[in-house]
Amino acid sequence: MIENSSNYVIPPNNTGDGLTRVVSGRDHTGAVQEIPVVEERPLTIFLNGQEIVTAMTIGDYPAYLALGFLRNQGMLAVGESVLGVDYDEELETVVVRTDGSTIYEEKLKKKTRTSGCAVGTVFGDMMEGLDQVVLPKAELRTSWLYALARQINQTPSLYLAAGAIHGSVLCREDRPLVYMEDVGRHNAVDKIAGWMLSEKVEGGDKIMYTTGRLTSEMVIKCALMGIPVLVSRSGFTAWGVEIAQQVGLTLIGRMRGKRFMCLSGADRMIWDADPDHVAEEKGKRRSGNE
Amino acid sequence: MIENSSNYVIPPNNTGDGLTRVVSGRDHTGAVQEIPVVEERPLTIFLNGQEIVTAMTIGDYPAYLALGFLRNQGMLAVGESVLGVDYDEELETVVVRTDGSTIYEEKLKKKTRTSGCAVGTVFGDMMEGLDQVVLPKAELRTSWLYALARQINQTPSLYLAAGAIHGSVLCREDRPLVYMEDVGRHNAVDKIAGWMLSEKVEGGDKIMYTTGRLTSEMVIKCALMGIPVLVSRSGFTAWGVEIAQQVGLTLIGRMRGKRFMCLSGADRMIWDADPDHVAEEKGKRRSGNE
Repeated sequence: MIENSSNYVIPPNNTGDGLTRVVSGRDHTGAVQEIPVVEERPLTIFLNGQEIVTAMTIGDYPAYLALGFLRNQGMLAVGESVLGVDYDEELETVVVRTDGSTIYEEKLKKKTRTSGCAVGTVFGDMMEGLDQVVLPKAELRTSWLYALARQINQTPSLYLAAGAIHGSVLCREDRPLVYMEDVGRHNAVDKIAGWMLSEKVEGGDKIMYTTGRLTSEMVIKCALMGIPVLVSRSGFTAWGVEIAQQVGLTLIGRMRGKRFMCLSGADRMIWDADPDHVAEEKGKRRSGNE
Repeated sequence: MIENSSNYVIPPNNTGDGLTRVVSGRDHTGAVQEIPVVEERPLTIFLNGQEIVTAMTIGDYPAYLALGFLRNQGMLAVGESVLGVDYDEELETVVVRTDGSTIYEEKLKKKTRTSGCAVGTVFGDMMEGLDQVVLPKAELRTSWLYALARQINQTPSLYLAAGAIHGSVLCREDRPLVYMEDVGRHNAVDKIAGWMLSEKVEGGDKIMYTTGRLTSEMVIKCALMGIPVLVSRSGFTAWGVEIAQQVGLTLIGRMRGKRFMCLSGADRMIWDADPDHVAEEKGKRRSGNE
């Protein structure tokens, strides 16, 4: 059974228009074959006058990606008003204009001071932002988890069409709302963060489902978005678990068929589903691939 | 049948000593369970006096990771002599000392000039290095591919022990030589690059097998290492294929059981194996997970 994508506020771009390219090659028998492969483009994100980062992306929702990245890096303060977002497809740039020049200038001073490279700093900034995070007491029913996994895995997605791509899905209770995909799993989450920022959507009653691993960075981004539950088909890293426990985020991984592991925030969970009545997975569907 | 890891020059750290941590959680039935999860630590890499990047790594082979990263970023010139590599476990730093101060200073000027962030620049530097790359006319037998996939998939690895980790394996003909794993697939490749640099091993007669996707960055790193063949269980990105075709690198992806696709450099291939005699995959083994 295939879910109706119109259940989503934003379904995946499963047609792949402009996001995939057909490439000709040779298969294992030596025969010529044509297959679709996902696009991967550099997108340079500017905050006002300042170049911040060049992300590799499939290229859909550049404005959401830029907004979400800057927000998750703490470079856009909460409530800071965004005056505009200008995307230039030809130059592969997106410029986010705000009235909060002081904030990014301060960040940039810090960047130069603490690190020769944004990777280190950006990470430092993210950790820093965690101090203010207080995640709400939400409840999480296992029946929701199984319903979400079933719908998400059966939704026609770019992954099912071309592979080599990650998906993140913003959900509420048993309903998937926004399904973003990207070559980088962080981009998919940042695009959701950008959408939430633009639409003024709160994270407190949401669940984030991702196909990527539950690394420290994924946990931090989710916590900064105010989302108390992070679920993945893939596995954990020790630091990801540690941070989740520190900020009180419910962390569920290795979710395949009826099985999953919860390594943080189990107090939110309500075991209301009988795992033995969950059909084991069959056929082509998303695997926790990178 | 499990391969004897002693066939390897460097086998995986499959015992996970110091690389995994046992964490207690609740499973899908609500029962308490303990599982091993991989460590993920920041490692800040310095080149002489200059902080370059903070990488997230499982933490084995920090010296190889630092050397390989700097080499693949073009921050260590070919033939530039490394005076020493100092790893400080407590400070989570590794300092690479060279006599080529001019080189990194020039790189850093460029970094500041072209980009506020190393991510963008580093990428620019990598592309730049491609001009000099000339990959040798090697041959690649499909019988080697099947033999390598079988051995690698059945080698006891940290992935099989704890999941959530990528592997890259340096191979020659039908023999896997060096098997590195890391939370970041690029780290695994960089650690191999660092080993090659330290041991003065040439890439021309080698094959790189990776569990990660064949993105532009993976293809570029492989080309910069002088390795003419890159193989993965996972899929392709369009730009990865484009760059592979530009530099004449043989790119093979989606290799599962008897199946694979070659989207670049098929001229090196010799179809000497009968795919129908290749056993399809069974049981627990590496999947192209992230």
